[in-house]
Amino acid sequence: VNDLRRLSVNSETIKQWSLEELVAGCVAQGVPGIAPWREPVENYGLHKAARLIRDAGLTVTSLCRGGFYTVAEPKARRAALDDNRRAIDEAAELNSPVLVLVSGGLDDRDLKGARDRVADALAELAPYAGERQVTLAIEPLHPMFCSDRCVVSSLGGALDLAEQFPASQVGVIVDAYHLWWDADIYRHLERAGERILSYQVSDWVVPLPEDTLLGRGMMGDGSIELRRLREACDAAGYDGPIEVEIFNQVLWDAPGQEVFDLALTRYQEHVI
Amino acid sequence: VNDLRRLSVNSETIKQWSLEELVAGCVAQGVPGIAPWREPVENYGLHKAARLIRDAGLTVTSLCRGGFYTVAEPKARRAALDDNRRAIDEAAELNSPVLVLVSGGLDDRDLKGARDRVADALAELAPYAGERQVTLAIEPLHPMFCSDRCVVSSLGGALDLAEQFPASQVGVIVDAYHLWWDADIYRHLERAGERILSYQVSDWVVPLPEDTLLGRGMMGDGSIELRRLREACDAAGYDGPIEVEIFNQVLWDAPGQEVFDLALTRYQEHVI
Repeated sequence: VNDLRRLSVNSETIKQWSLEELVAGCVAQGVPGIAPWREPVENYGLHKAARLIRDAGLTVTSLCRGGFYTVAEPKARRAALDDNRRAIDEAAELNSPVLVLVSGGLDDRDLKGARDRVADALAELAPYAGERQVTLAIEPLHPMFCSDRCVVSSLGGALDLAEQFPASQVGVIVDAYHLWWDADIYRHLERAGERILSYQVSDWVVPLPEDTLLGRGMMGDGSIELRRLREACDAAGYDGPIEVEIFNQVLWDAPGQEVFDLALTRYQEHVI
Repeated sequence: VNDLRRLSVNSETIKQWSLEELVAGCVAQGVPGIAPWREPVENYGLHKAARLIRDAGLTVTSLCRGGFYTVAEPKARRAALDDNRRAIDEAAELNSPVLVLVSGGLDDRDLKGARDRVADALAELAPYAGERQVTLAIEPLHPMFCSDRCVVSSLGGALDLAEQFPASQVGVIVDAYHLWWDADIYRHLERAGERILSYQVSDWVVPLPEDTLLGRGMMGDGSIELRRLREACDAAGYDGPIEVEIFNQVLWDAPGQEVFDLALTRYQEHVI
């Protein structure tokens, strides 16, 4: 069985490929979705990128990423919100139904204050996104990134935020790497239901590299029950894209086509 | 104010000191408690160590550590449980009211299976510990250690396990480093109540070192609201020892007395 119907490949996974190479690779293998980061889109040109992807018959499943609005200082905060409005515009231009949001870390030690500022930022951005048919996707990151990157550290915490808004405006990303360890994950997935905007896969491999951002391994190389989590998303009512998002220097140093082909194989073996 | 009444120093914090040096250091500064690891106790001799500490007028607040019983293979499992019974005996000999348990990681991908084996191990060990007046303390470790060191990754998960047993037999360790990021931590501390057997302090400092086990920083150097968490433990009814437990190569390379004195200062500035 060659079932790639739900598959989307994140542009960072095959960072050694240009946006054009990624689009061509997806078309050649029958991968229907791509999930670009803003940087390669900006480098290629937003309008050109939108046309490239559309003309290839591919779907943008999500745009990575906005967020980083935990900063308290008013000027920096205004700049962060402006940047998020631009990200929403870019998502709309790309026909991406979803903008991924990573909240940002701590200014100081006030975790509750930072989380409150996330809620405030969402309140300001959600209507703007709604008008452009873009749903904001809160991505809880692994707790090891809580201080410096994302104060939303669990699916429960993400849902507490998302549920303050209509589901058409704010939902959540379920990234297996960030959430697999949670003893309550299956309960929270059930609760998440229609709030689930993407299921993202990679694997947890130890030891972590010195740069913990690059610890994400290829599906099947680590400890995560990727299929079980996918089935739980589906049981909660999710039937959308499954995005392969891996940041890994060893994979970036390998030939892009090899990594791409391996990701497709492993996706079928371990996820669907 | 020089208030060290609740302070206990973990032997690993000043690893460059021998057990005798640590005891002498505590006596000199009026620190009433110590929390030794099994290795320095074994090296010094169990009976000798018990007498050294008792004769100095110090209290052992906890013994570090048992656990590592997630392994499924029957022979290895039996060996792990036997080692835990020895650890309980050692705690009893040291007059330690508490034995700290780190569960161990994953054999494979079956997280639920591993967590079930933790519950089974506790069921086997709890009565044995109870007969010896030693309370077993489940220590949830930071989720970044879930796969290779401890499948109990949150206070909620630890309480789900502990509550299957009488509070006199099984409780939990609240280590700020492992738990501070949890959006539900204050709710879980309230729930924990009399199950809290120790509050342990250090700090979360980024970037993490390559060996993430050694990432624990000196109180005040990082992101954790140590006082707020301590107050929440107290509000839940906890009035026991507060243990300084830091693993940090930079501090181990410094003169022991400097680190010890700094820990006492920072404890008073940031914890009590």
